[in-house]
Order: sequence, then C-alpha cells, then structure tokens
Amino acid sequence: MTDLKLVSSVRCFEGEQRRYEHQARTLDCTMQFSVYLPPQALRSEHVPAVLWLSGLTCTDENFSAKAGAQRVAAELGLALIIPDTSPRGDQVADDDAYDFGKGAGFYVNATEQPWAKHYQMYDYISKELIELVHKELPLNGRLSISGHSMGGHGALIMALRETERFESVSAFAPIAHPSACPWGLKAFTGYLGEDRAKWQDYDAVSLMRQGQQCPPLLVDQGSDDNFLAEQLNFSLLEETVKSLDSPSHLRLQKGYDHSYYFIASFIEEHLRFHHSYLTS
Amino acid sequence: MTDLKLVSSVRCFEGEQRRYEHQARTLDCTMQFSVYLPPQALRSEHVPAVLWLSGLTCTDENFSAKAGAQRVAAELGLALIIPDTSPRGDQVADDDAYDFGKGAGFYVNATEQPWAKHYQMYDYISKELIELVHKELPLNGRLSISGHSMGGHGALIMALRETERFESVSAFAPIAHPSACPWGLKAFTGYLGEDRAKWQDYDAVSLMRQGQQCPPLLVDQGSDDNFLAEQLNFSLLEETVKSLDSPSHLRLQKGYDHSYYFIASFIEEHLRFHHSYLTS
Repeated sequence: MTDLKLVSSVRCFEGEQRRYEHQARTLDCTMQFSVYLPPQALRSEHVPAVLWLSGLTCTDENFSAKAGAQRVAAELGLALIIPDTSPRGDQVADDDAYDFGKGAGFYVNATEQPWAKHYQMYDYISKELIELVHKELPLNGRLSISGHSMGGHGALIMALRETERFESVSAFAPIAHPSACPWGLKAFTGYLGEDRAKWQDYDAVSLMRQGQQCPPLLVDQGSDDNFLAEQLNFSLLEETVKSLDSPSHLRLQKGYDHSYYFIASFIEEHLRFHHSYLTS
Repeated sequence: MTDLKLVSSVRCFEGEQRRYEHQARTLDCTMQFSVYLPPQALRSEHVPAVLWLSGLTCTDENFSAKAGAQRVAAELGLALIIPDTSPRGDQVADDDAYDFGKGAGFYVNATEQPWAKHYQMYDYISKELIELVHKELPLNGRLSISGHSMGGHGALIMALRETERFESVSAFAPIAHPSACPWGLKAFTGYLGEDRAKWQDYDAVSLMRQGQQCPPLLVDQGSDDNFLAEQLNFSLLEETVKSLDSPSHLRLQKGYDHSYYFIASFIEEHLRFHHSYLTS
C-alpha cells in the first residue's frame, strides 16, 4: 500500500517526468509534487537525487517545465524531487499578496495564527517528503539540495541545519538574509512573530555567522536581477561564506536577471556540481 | 526608423531572449513575437535562423520558455524566430473553442467571414515577418523551419510551397493531413469554406502527392501521443514521403506524448539537423 498517488507520468529524455499527490500529515492538507526519474532509475537502478525548492508564486510545475534540467539529470542519472512552495487547498489560510500565504511558504514552520495550522514547510520538506520519496522511489539515499530565490533561501537553511542529510547545496539568486530584506521581514513577522531571535534558525547568513557547518556550496546571482539590490544580499553572503570551512563558489553572472532563462543557463553546471559530490 | 518595438530582452546562454511588438499590415493588428539571438549575433556576426511555428493555444512564449532550445542555438550560432499562432486584439474575431479562432490560426489565409479580415497567417509569416526580421536583425538570410502539431502542419506546408526559402524543415507530431482529421476539417471549413479544392494548398500530404519539392525533412512523433490516432496521420505521412526526392527521416519515438517534454527531448537533434543544411 503506497502513500503516493500518481497523477501523471510523461516520457522525457528517456526518463519520466511524474506528478504525485499525497496526504501531507505535517501540513494537514493534500499536496502535489513533481519528480523526474532518469532512465537509470527506470532500469531499476537506485539513483542519487537533487531536491529543488522553487521561488515565490511557483508550484512544482515551473522548474519542471522551464529549467531544462531533465536533459542533464538523464545523462548523469540524477532524480529530481520538486515540491510545491506552500500548503494548498480551500481550507488553508491565504493572503492576497504574491509574497505571503499560498505560493510563499518561505520554508519555515509557522508559529503564528492562522498560519501555524498548515504552514509547516520546513518540517514537511526536510522530514516528511524526504522520507516519503526515499521509501517509495528508486533512490539510493544520497541527496543534494538547490533552489531559486525564496527556494534558494530554503536550500541554504536546510543544508545548514541538516548538514548530514545533504552532500552539497546550490542556489540561484537566494534570499540570503531574509531577516533584513522586505520579503523576509514580511514573511518572518507574519509566520514567526515579532521575536527576531526565532528568525535566526531560518536565515542563512545568521546560521553561517553562528558557525553552522555547510556542505560544499555553489551560488549563481545575475548582475541584472531586479531584486539584487533590495532583497537578496548577495554581497553580504559573499562576505559571510569566507568564514566557512567547506568549499564555496559564489558567482555574479553578468547581464542575467531573476527569471527561469537565468536558471536554464546554469542548471547544467549546478547538477554537475551536485553529481560530483553525490557520487564521490 | 525601425518597425519593431522591443518589449523585453533577457540574457540566456550568453545570448538574448527578446520579445518584439509590431504593426502587422497583413493581419491588420498589433502582433508580438519572440526571438532568440545567440551570442554570435550579439558580437555583430550575421547568423542563420530557424523559424518555429507553435501549436494550438500557444503564443510565442511556450516554445521560448519550455523547449530548452536556446542552449543548442547558442552553441551552434542559430537565431530562433518564434511567431504567435493567430492574429490578436479585441477587434479580432474569435471563437470559444480552443481549436478555432485566436490561438488557432492554422497558418492559412482565411477567405470566409468574419475571419478573412485578420486571419492571414500564411502570408503574415511566410512574407511579412520573414522580411521584417531579415531587415531588422543580424541574420544572414539562410532559414529553416520547424514546428509542433498545428505548427508542424504550418512548417510542412510553408516548406513545400516556399521551397527556395527554406534550407530544411522539421516537425514534432505535425497535423500531416488536415483535410482528413477533425481539427483540420473544422479549421479549413471555417477559414476556407466548403470547397475542398481550396484546402489542398494547405495540406502537407496533398502537396506531396501533387509532386511538390520538399527540403530535407525530419519528423518526430511520440508513440503515446493522445492525438496520434485521430488527428495526426503519421502513417500516411510515412507512406507519402516515400515519393519525395529529398532526404526524409520520420521517427516514431517510443513512449513520448504530445507535450513540450517530448519537444525538449528532441529539439537538440532538430537544431543540429537544420544547422547542417544552414551551413553547408
């Protein structure tokens, strides 16, 4: 008896792009997520995986359709695990803004009402979903993590807090220091309340400053990203990673913006980066 | 004084993904289209181009965002020209169906009312748009054509009728014989009227049977395509191309469907196919 319902499965680069539905007990709602299984996994090999966390307004479908990641994943024999960005359903509290509520879970465990009942995205992904896919899919247990913008923030904090779980971490234009940018201030105040001490566990720069270990790290940031100056704190991240023990590569990519055209341009390098740690 | 208004330009694989707007005199309305310029074109080289025609319900954005074509176009130094699939605007006649009216121009010159005023997609693309992009963009004049489904039909008929214009033609799951499938019967009756003699100039199988020359041809068709049995007439196309003088490669791709995941899986081979003729 499986806990997963297969919603769709489409051939892609000789592998399969799948969509699953399940009852997420951590979130107390029905969730969908996407998986790419490379051809190696369809030939009953167990493969390593990269967990991808998406940005504001996304579902599991944006990265699946727009990043062009499956080609390289097929070549390298990597599964891609692509969750949604918030709890979903009519019973889930929401907000009219694009940057709060549904589509904007910020990968935290909310403590404030009315959000606390469903918005437990940190535990949902770092515990429930990871356990579920390793129980149900042909994965070999080795896992890396990546993400974009809000999802880049999510990837960084999960890698910093669950160091044993992830072989490597990467991010595209991450919200590196949410405690000190408009998106983060709004989300953390709303989901976590006014006590800033509670925010630190969900802030990559703060976690690094506390001396958290970090897996090997790759970050790409577009120089023409509209959100660079106000939201992303890339320079501060560059400064902060200098104190890390592990390898870190931060790159300012000239002329690129915040879109999936930017992600598509560099996803191959990110997957090859993860593959090197997932197979070493 | 240019006839093109640049709507957006985003860096992608060191080239630029652009969107343009212009007054289309053939269609008597304002149109948008997308262009990918590879890095070679930004360094003031003049490059060959592939014209891509999209399928039902698409705009110029679907292929741009989902096919993953820019990576290979950048490597090979190919521009991509991606028009919309119908005239647009409040003054343009429409239909509630997804397969007729806006988003479903079928690349014909309509003769029936109320469609004839704006639905002149054959002339718009094969004459006005091709002339415009060659006047305004760094292209070297050599051009191939490709497309998907309704756009595969469009690519085939344009290549068969404008043989001198295109170096090569390819298609994904084309509507090969629209005179004899539900989509085509509906569209041709609506746009062209009941006289089937007028349909033949817009039907790839009919044009081939008439002995039209065809540029070198590559067609991919998914075996699990929901539309294969009723709409696409792939077997008939296989049978008909045997009479062509030029090289033709028709491939049934096992397990693939009608989606952009299918296109993404094989677009690299199509662009390499076109490149070989565009540079020989």
